[in-house]
Amino acid sequence: MAKFMDVHHGMKDITADQLKEAHAADLAHQDQEGVTFEHAWADPVSGDVFCLSEAPSADAVQRVHERAGHAADEVHPVPLMV
Amino acid sequence: MAKFMDVHHGMKDITADQLKEAHAADLAHQDQEGVTFEHAWADPVSGDVFCLSEAPSADAVQRVHERAGHAADEVHPVPLMV
Repeated sequence: MAKFMDVHHGMKDITADQLKEAHAADLAHQDQEGVTFEHAWADPVSGDVFCLSEAPSADAVQRVHERAGHAADEVHPVPLMV
Repeated sequence: MAKFMDVHHGMKDITADQLKEAHAADLAHQDQEGVTFEHAWADPVSGDVFCLSEAPSADAVQRVHERAGHAADEVHPVPLMV
């Protein structure tokens, strides 16, 4: 298992409820891929959303997001953390 | 106080020690701006580094990073979090 930070662009004007719903959709699909979505942070002005997860691979992260209806624009393995 | 996610590009091949040193430099300069850097995650392959902080403004986050010798490429207010 490894840590991943993925980024979604184009989510301008996302609301707190929409972020909660999107995160809930990820949680509903994550088990089949062995992914654990930990947190997500959204900037409604730029439309960027950052998701932190623990997962077996970047592809697994993306598959969960795709099934949840919102593919990520970038999925970064982040092996270094402080 | 608000949450911010800032992003640094171009940090390819960053090592664990370099990330620790960069974070320590942020911590050494953060008090004068009322910023608290909480975590940083690095992708040494793409060279992207993500820093999560609590701060009075995006400008305050950037000033700390500048004084620490590594200005951010993006500083996002992230008022929404799950």
